[in-house]
Amino acid sequence: MNDISWFALGSTVVVALAIGIGVVGPAFAMGRAISSALEALARQPEAERSIMRTLFIGLAMIESLAIYVLVIALIILFRNPLLEYLLKS
Amino acid sequence: MNDISWFALGSTVVVALAIGIGVVGPAFAMGRAISSALEALARQPEAERSIMRTLFIGLAMIESLAIYVLVIALIILFRNPLLEYLLKS
Amino acid sequence: MNDISWFALGSTVVVALAIGIGVVGPAFAMGRAISSALEALARQPEAERSIMRTLFIGLAMIESLAIYVLVIALIILFRNPLLEYLLKS
Amino acid sequence: MNDISWFALGSTVVVALAIGIGVVGPAFAMGRAISSALEALARQPEAERSIMRTLFIGLAMIESLAIYVLVIALIILFRNPLLEYLLKS
Amino acid sequence: MNDISWFALGSTVVVALAIGIGVVGPAFAMGRAISSALEALARQPEAERSIMRTLFIGLAMIESLAIYVLVIALIILFRNPLLEYLLKS
Amino acid sequence: MNDISWFALGSTVVVALAIGIGVVGPAFAMGRAISSALEALARQPEAERSIMRTLFIGLAMIESLAIYVLVIALIILFRNPLLEYLLKS
Amino acid sequence: MNDISWFALGSTVVVALAIGIGVVGPAFAMGRAISSALEALARQPEAERSIMRTLFIGLAMIESLAIYVLVIALIILFRNPLLEYLLKS
Amino acid sequence: MNDISWFALGSTVVVALAIGIGVVGPAFAMGRAISSALEALARQPEAERSIMRTLFIGLAMIESLAIYVLVIALIILFRNPLLEYLLKS
Amino acid sequence: MNDISWFALGSTVVVALAIGIGVVGPAFAMGRAISSALEALARQPEAERSIMRTLFIGLAMIESLAIYVLVIALIILFRNPLLEYLLKS
Amino acid sequence: MNDISWFALGSTVVVALAIGIGVVGPAFAMGRAISSALEALARQPEAERSIMRTLFIGLAMIESLAIYVLVIALIILFRNPLLEYLLKS
Amino acid sequence: MNDISWFALGSTVVVALAIGIGVVGPAFAMGRAISSALEALARQPEAERSIMRTLFIGLAMIESLAIYVLVIALIILFRNPLLEYLLKS
Amino acid sequence: MNDISWFALGSTVVVALAIGIGVVGPAFAMGRAISSALEALARQPEAERSIMRTLFIGLAMIESLAIYVLVIALIILFRNPLLEYLLKS
Amino acid sequence: MNDISWFALGSTVVVALAIGIGVVGPAFAMGRAISSALEALARQPEAERSIMRTLFIGLAMIESLAIYVLVIALIILFRNPLLEYLLKS
Amino acid sequence: MNDISWFALGSTVVVALAIGIGVVGPAFAMGRAISSALEALARQPEAERSIMRTLFIGLAMIESLAIYVLVIALIILFRNPLLEYLLKS
Repeated sequence: MNDISWFALGSTVVVALAIGIGVVGPAFAMGRAISSALEALARQPEAERSIMRTLFIGLAMIESLAIYVLVIALIILFRNPLLEYLLKS
Repeated sequence: MNDISWFALGSTVVVALAIGIGVVGPAFAMGRAISSALEALARQPEAERSIMRTLFIGLAMIESLAIYVLVIALIILFRNPLLEYLLKS
Repeated sequence: MNDISWFALGSTVVVALAIGIGVVGPAFAMGRAISSALEALARQPEAERSIMRTLFIGLAMIESLAIYVLVIALIILFRNPLLEYLLKS
Repeated sequence: MNDISWFALGSTVVVALAIGIGVVGPAFAMGRAISSALEALARQPEAERSIMRTLFIGLAMIESLAIYVLVIALIILFRNPLLEYLLKS
Repeated sequence: MNDISWFALGSTVVVALAIGIGVVGPAFAMGRAISSALEALARQPEAERSIMRTLFIGLAMIESLAIYVLVIALIILFRNPLLEYLLKS
Repeated sequence: MNDISWFALGSTVVVALAIGIGVVGPAFAMGRAISSALEALARQPEAERSIMRTLFIGLAMIESLAIYVLVIALIILFRNPLLEYLLKS
Repeated sequence: MNDISWFALGSTVVVALAIGIGVVGPAFAMGRAISSALEALARQPEAERSIMRTLFIGLAMIESLAIYVLVIALIILFRNPLLEYLLKS
Repeated sequence: MNDISWFALGSTVVVALAIGIGVVGPAFAMGRAISSALEALARQPEAERSIMRTLFIGLAMIESLAIYVLVIALIILFRNPLLEYLLKS
Repeated sequence: MNDISWFALGSTVVVALAIGIGVVGPAFAMGRAISSALEALARQPEAERSIMRTLFIGLAMIESLAIYVLVIALIILFRNPLLEYLLKS
Repeated sequence: MNDISWFALGSTVVVALAIGIGVVGPAFAMGRAISSALEALARQPEAERSIMRTLFIGLAMIESLAIYVLVIALIILFRNPLLEYLLKS
Repeated sequence: MNDISWFALGSTVVVALAIGIGVVGPAFAMGRAISSALEALARQPEAERSIMRTLFIGLAMIESLAIYVLVIALIILFRNPLLEYLLKS
Repeated sequence: MNDISWFALGSTVVVALAIGIGVVGPAFAMGRAISSALEALARQPEAERSIMRTLFIGLAMIESLAIYVLVIALIILFRNPLLEYLLKS
Repeated sequence: MNDISWFALGSTVVVALAIGIGVVGPAFAMGRAISSALEALARQPEAERSIMRTLFIGLAMIESLAIYVLVIALIILFRNPLLEYLLKS
Repeated sequence: MNDISWFALGSTVVVALAIGIGVVGPAFAMGRAISSALEALARQPEAERSIMRTLFIGLAMIESLAIYVLVIALIILFRNPLLEYLLKS
């Protein structure tokens, strides 16, 4: 196999693994946050607005972590800056 | 084996593993969220509407994480941008 | 072994592993959801309808994750798009 | 060893492992569901019918996950579509 | 070693491992179910009949998972359909 | 080493490992069941007969799992059907 | 090294490992059972006889699992049926 | 493969893994913090302002850890100082 | 290295590992049993005799598991029956 | 690959891994500290000042640990003293 | 390296590992026993004598497990019976 | 690669790993200590001075452990006494 | 490398690992014992003398386990009896 | 690489790992002890002196374990007795 083949194969493998591993943490965190929001709702139904606001801000923060992984994965898949060095050589 | 064979084999293997690993996190998170929603329902049956709304938003957010993995897996399987470099060379 | 043999063997191995690993998460999640539904039933028997509705929606969402793995496994086993590149070369 | 031998050996090994690993998740989930049903029975003996109905639906859903693994295992053992490519070549 | 030897050795090894791993899950699940049944008995001795009925159905469902592993193990040991391809070649 | 030697060595190794691993699950399950029976006895001494009956049925079910492993181990050690293919070749 | 040497070395190694691993499960189970018996004694000193009887039956059942491992270990060490095939060849 | 190829491949692989692993910790921490904030809200709705302030400061601190990983990943991907030594040689 | 050397080295290594691993389980079990005995003593000082009797029987049963490992270790170190086959050949 | 290439590749790989692993501990610790601060706020809103002061000092101490890792990573990436020995030779 | 060198190196390595691993279990067990003794003392100061007696017997039993490891380690280091076979050959 | 190169690469790798692993323990410990301090503050606000004093002494003790790792890492990176033997030879 | 070099390197490596692993168990045990002593002090300040006596005896017993590891490490480093066989040969 | 180089590299690597692993246990133990001291302070502020005395003795005992690792690390780095055998040969 030549260099480009190895590079393409390695990038594909690692992108799939990274996204597979990288959603585990955010998924657990979301599960925990939603679970607590539901418990809070059951205990204080009249505080629904502030609970929902806090939950949405929290989910957005956690989602941002998953987006970091997705962005890195898409950069590697579609527009890897290190690929130019390979194409040049 | 030539380059395309290795690439096809490697992509197939990693796609299967990624989807296999990547649903573990969202599954746990969903289990936790649904479990809390049921507990909340049992404690405050009259708050059913706000509980269901929160649960559905939460499940959608968690499902989005599993969709990220699925999308990456389908991109690799059907339309991998790195495959063009291989076909060219 | 020639290319097709390696590809067939690798695909078979990884499909079996992926489905074996991929049902663990949904199974745990289902166990947790059903367990909570039963506890909720024991605490609030009169809320049976909303509990059952929430449980069924939840089980369907979790089942969808297992279906993702099954679909990817069946695509790899029966109609892998990457196989065409191999058959051509 | 020729191609068919490797393929047969690999398939046998991976089928046994997949079924061995794949029943762990459903087993835990069933244990949890049955355990909760028994606790619910002890707390609300008069709700036996709705508890049993929920339990049976839940066990069927979890059993379906184990069946997925079993089906994939039997497909690989008895009627693997990828085997034809090997027999042709 | 010739093909048949490798196949026999590999099958033997994997059968023993699969049954060794495959009883762990059902064993834990049974332990949990029996444990809950005993606790339920201690709390509601008069509900013995419905508790025992639920326990027996549950143990049968869990046992079925262990039987899946045993059946696959015995198929591989005594009547492996993939062995014919080896004996033919 | 010739084929029979490898086969004998591999079988011996895997039998010892399988029985070593395979008793862990049943042992934990038994410990849990007995522990619950003792707690139930301490809480409801007058329900001793139904507790003992449930415990014995449960221990027998768990023991059956360990027996599966033992049976497979003894089949491999004393009367392995795959050994005939080796002796013939 | 000739065949017998490998066989003797492999058997020795695996016997030691199997007994080392195989007592972990029964030990934990015994610890749990004895611990529960002591708690039960502290809560219901007058139920000592039925507690002791249950404990002894339970310890005997768990000990039987450790004996399985010991028996397999001693069979391999002193009278391995597969050794005859080696000595013949 | 020449030096630049190895370097590009290795950097790509490690960047994807680092971001995949590196968001796990912050995700769990965020999940925990948000969960506690929601519980605190449910217990003391009138302390919402100080709770939100503490939560935001905390999330910012945790986000900073994920940013460290992202920064190192982007440095390696876009502007690795060690790359110059390679290009020179 | 000749056969005897390998055999002596392998036996020494595995004996040390087996005893190192094999005391972990009994140690945990003993810690748990003694811990429960002390708690029971603190709750029911007047039941000291039956507590002590149960504890001693339990410790003896657990010690027997550690003795199994020690006996196998000493057999391998001092009087390994498989060594004769080596010395003969 | 020559020496400088190996050194650059190895350094890059290890820097990414170190920062990826090194933020896990501080992240968990921060999550725990913030979580406790929020619980303390909910229980004693009037002690807000001393709670916030303690939290900030604690977060600074934990952040210092992450900074240690970042500093070592940046030293290795930008100004590794061991690199001079390589450049000299 | 000749046989004696390998044997000496292997023995040294394994002795250090065995003692390093082998004290973990007894250490945990002792920590648990002492912890329970202190709790028991705080709850029933007047039962000090029977608590101390039970604790000392327990610590002696746990210490005996660590002594087993130490004895095997010292036998291997100072007076290994398998060494004679090596010195003879 | 010559000796100095290997030494520089190995030292760099191990320094990064050691600092990455070595801050995990202190980070967890700090998180726990701060968490307890905040809980103590919420329960006994008037004991703030003695709580803060104990917390600071504790954090200093834990920080000392992280400093040990940092010092060893800096010694290896900047002034390794074993490097002289290499430079001499 | 000659025999003495391998032996010295192997001994150094294993000594460092053994002491690194071997202090984990005693450290946890000490942490647990001290933690319980502090709780006991807070619950029964007037039983300080018997608590302190029990704690010191316990810490000494646990310390003895760490000393075992240290002694074996120092024997291997300074006065290894197996080294003589090497120096002789 | 010659002997001294390997020895220096191996020693450096293992020293860094040992200190990195070896502070984990003491760190956890310290965190636990300090945490308990703070809880004890919050429950019994008037017992501050005996709590602080016990805590300091405990921290010193745990610190001694970390010092053992540090001492072994510094001996290996600065004054390894096994180095003389290497320099002689």
